[in-house]
Amino acid sequence: MSEAPSETPTQVPSWERLQELVATGNAEGLRDCLQALGATEVAHAVSKLATEERTAMLVLLEPADAADVIVDVPDSQAVELLGEMAPAEAAAIVDELRSDYQVDLLTSLDEAGSAAILDEMDGAEAADVRQRLSYESDTAGGLMVTEYLAFPEHLTVADVVDDMRRHGEEYSDYNVQYTYVITDVGLLAGVVPMRSLLLAGRSRSLGQLMIRDPLRVTTDAAIDELIEFFDNHGFLGVPVVDAEGRLAGVVHRREIQEAQEHQVDRTFLESRGIVGGEELRSMSVGLRSRRRLSWLSVNILLNIAAASVIAFYQDTLAAVIALAVFLPIISDMSGCSGNQAVAVSIRELTLGLVKPGELFRVLYGELRVGLINGLVLGILLGAVAALWQGNLWLGLVVGVALTLNTIVAVSLGGLIPLVLRRFDKDPALASGPILTTVTDMCGFFLVLSLASLALSKLS
Amino acid sequence: MSEAPSETPTQVPSWERLQELVATGNAEGLRDCLQALGATEVAHAVSKLATEERTAMLVLLEPADAADVIVDVPDSQAVELLGEMAPAEAAAIVDELRSDYQVDLLTSLDEAGSAAILDEMDGAEAADVRQRLSYESDTAGGLMVTEYLAFPEHLTVADVVDDMRRHGEEYSDYNVQYTYVITDVGLLAGVVPMRSLLLAGRSRSLGQLMIRDPLRVTTDAAIDELIEFFDNHGFLGVPVVDAEGRLAGVVHRREIQEAQEHQVDRTFLESRGIVGGEELRSMSVGLRSRRRLSWLSVNILLNIAAASVIAFYQDTLAAVIALAVFLPIISDMSGCSGNQAVAVSIRELTLGLVKPGELFRVLYGELRVGLINGLVLGILLGAVAALWQGNLWLGLVVGVALTLNTIVAVSLGGLIPLVLRRFDKDPALASGPILTTVTDMCGFFLVLSLASLALSKLS
Repeated sequence: MSEAPSETPTQVPSWERLQELVATGNAEGLRDCLQALGATEVAHAVSKLATEERTAMLVLLEPADAADVIVDVPDSQAVELLGEMAPAEAAAIVDELRSDYQVDLLTSLDEAGSAAILDEMDGAEAADVRQRLSYESDTAGGLMVTEYLAFPEHLTVADVVDDMRRHGEEYSDYNVQYTYVITDVGLLAGVVPMRSLLLAGRSRSLGQLMIRDPLRVTTDAAIDELIEFFDNHGFLGVPVVDAEGRLAGVVHRREIQEAQEHQVDRTFLESRGIVGGEELRSMSVGLRSRRRLSWLSVNILLNIAAASVIAFYQDTLAAVIALAVFLPIISDMSGCSGNQAVAVSIRELTLGLVKPGELFRVLYGELRVGLINGLVLGILLGAVAALWQGNLWLGLVVGVALTLNTIVAVSLGGLIPLVLRRFDKDPALASGPILTTVTDMCGFFLVLSLASLALSKLS
Repeated sequence: MSEAPSETPTQVPSWERLQELVATGNAEGLRDCLQALGATEVAHAVSKLATEERTAMLVLLEPADAADVIVDVPDSQAVELLGEMAPAEAAAIVDELRSDYQVDLLTSLDEAGSAAILDEMDGAEAADVRQRLSYESDTAGGLMVTEYLAFPEHLTVADVVDDMRRHGEEYSDYNVQYTYVITDVGLLAGVVPMRSLLLAGRSRSLGQLMIRDPLRVTTDAAIDELIEFFDNHGFLGVPVVDAEGRLAGVVHRREIQEAQEHQVDRTFLESRGIVGGEELRSMSVGLRSRRRLSWLSVNILLNIAAASVIAFYQDTLAAVIALAVFLPIISDMSGCSGNQAVAVSIRELTLGLVKPGELFRVLYGELRVGLINGLVLGILLGAVAALWQGNLWLGLVVGVALTLNTIVAVSLGGLIPLVLRRFDKDPALASGPILTTVTDMCGFFLVLSLASLALSKLS
């Protein structure tokens, strides 16, 4: 019986095993352990290690293995990790990453950190990365990868197959679907699907085989244009050319999908007041606190402004103290109702189902929902108020105020994201605070001014 | 000068052009017009048409062209469109869709609608779809596509290339990366990457060429397992086998990505109170209103419960009526602070950076942020209160209450999503209401009980 504990496999959490391997400098064990873990497990373990431990871990690994870790963890964590390392060691890892990922990470690092890493990279590679960093991140130039196959048009199928045989290892990371065909000066001339290579005779040249003048985008094509492109075409990738028509890279459907996912994630976080980028609990308390306060401090000022409406009605409140119970309820519920409409509008804007100018259409849709839901909620809250204080007039005041304010909140909630988008502001970030400030003011005003009118019946 | 208006190209919105083409029964013009529009434009136009118009439009088109419209629009809109059509006409369109999309849409339709469409489909095809519908939607069986290449192991490369030549048109939709190899009884035997076909001699058999016993998942593999699989392996697809080991379909990385995107979208909508599925403004007012009320009615009851704390302190409020101004501020601000922590926890849970059991770790992280932000906000609000009423004690009561309640809100906000996840509840849906109810109650109690203690100094 006493041996049972030593018989059961010890369930050491993976981060503790990593900690142990780093402490003992066991590079080989570390690599094997990391390779056996799933990406999520790696991310979790890394987030549990202290800063020095995770830096030591990455330094202990071969750059290619360290790059695998960087790829496994979420982007914001990867940026943290690189920022904590010595530039030379970070540079060796960045060198191993896929081109679009290099750009993503270096763009997210602060300028000094990014420059220090580039200074440590191989000259030609660094120049290449700097060139790609010079493109806006939400354009084809910033999103493209430079790992693709391109051959001159005079080569034959046999030449290409030979080249693929020689570079099989290297190309296996490329997710190759197409071979691009270029002229002697690097201009994009055509594209050959992998399938055509398979089905064609070996002596045919790429120039004979290729689809001429394929669809392309320029390096400055905006992400919206690329989304539209992949919406309209079934292709898995599109070639990117520079101003002179030279092939510069390829944007795959995958990169656009990832960019869209980032957008959705950002919308979720911003709509809940996490601004200035993703927050991880592994970041410093000072940074997290400061970023959150930047949002909270705006909100508290807006809140004070809204609540100041109450200060004008202190006499009414003093006469009917029960009203104080209903003020926070009306404020909260209008926020709930309005935020539903905000979410639907943000979603429809994202999907393109509504355009920023279609205010009347949205207003018409929301007014009817607001009226029904306002009546239901107003009657409910009015009944509670009337029964609690045994005063039908109190119920009427509270119920009418909530009904009217729900209609206002739902209508405004639907419209605000459209107006913000029209003025190129981010709806996710600003809709909530604007909505609650206006509906709080309006709600406090409605219930207290109605109460003032009916004061003789209430007190 | 007078001719200028007629010279400028008329900018008829695309939905009006579609309306016109439908009204005149111009099938060809309709097809051309739709093909010229981007997916987003199609979705927008469809959402502007009346129910009868869009049904008429789909009926006017060839089923394959109508299927292109269905693919262009968001899923929830596609489900709406199919639900509005006669089952026979919907069946003809569903027949043209890719297998995983057939399952998605039929699963989202109500049961009667889905059964009616299946009854109208070709017997063999319907049996096939029914079989796939029998799998849970979040398993490999529900996510897989049945468009893939599979050949018996004795065939040669030349046989396969011949077959691909014959079926080029059909296969071009398949996004083929691999050819699967099966035994005579349909068991999965191996996989051949397209590249190997290209590089191998034409007389070699698939059996010689294939990677034996490739990684696979069973039809009942859960989505989490599939996410983990694609996190850990670079493959673009994984074969799905039934309980007997027969090849049943293929899940591509793309389908898993789409499933994850849906999850993120749902999180955003649910966290803002849109429950029971995506809401589009083209849905009926009754349905939209009912769904939104299901969420609002829970919230108003929780709000009433929280505000009832105020009712116990009516005497204190009557003595210091200025407190009524600060109750909604404390309630709102605690919600803001707490929701930031909720967002970070939901995000870290999604990324796997925190596990549902790690309550202490999250608490430690949030307590410190809550303390700093609570102090900052408390001092700010306390100063406003003290200056406004010229009463330092009022400032102290309000400031201390907000500080303490911020610490509570931030800590609870961090923990609630973990606890909900641990009990398999959806954090996005329930975190907000639970958080605000508890922090409202706590905040009202703190400010009013502190005020009661300091009553002699306040009034």
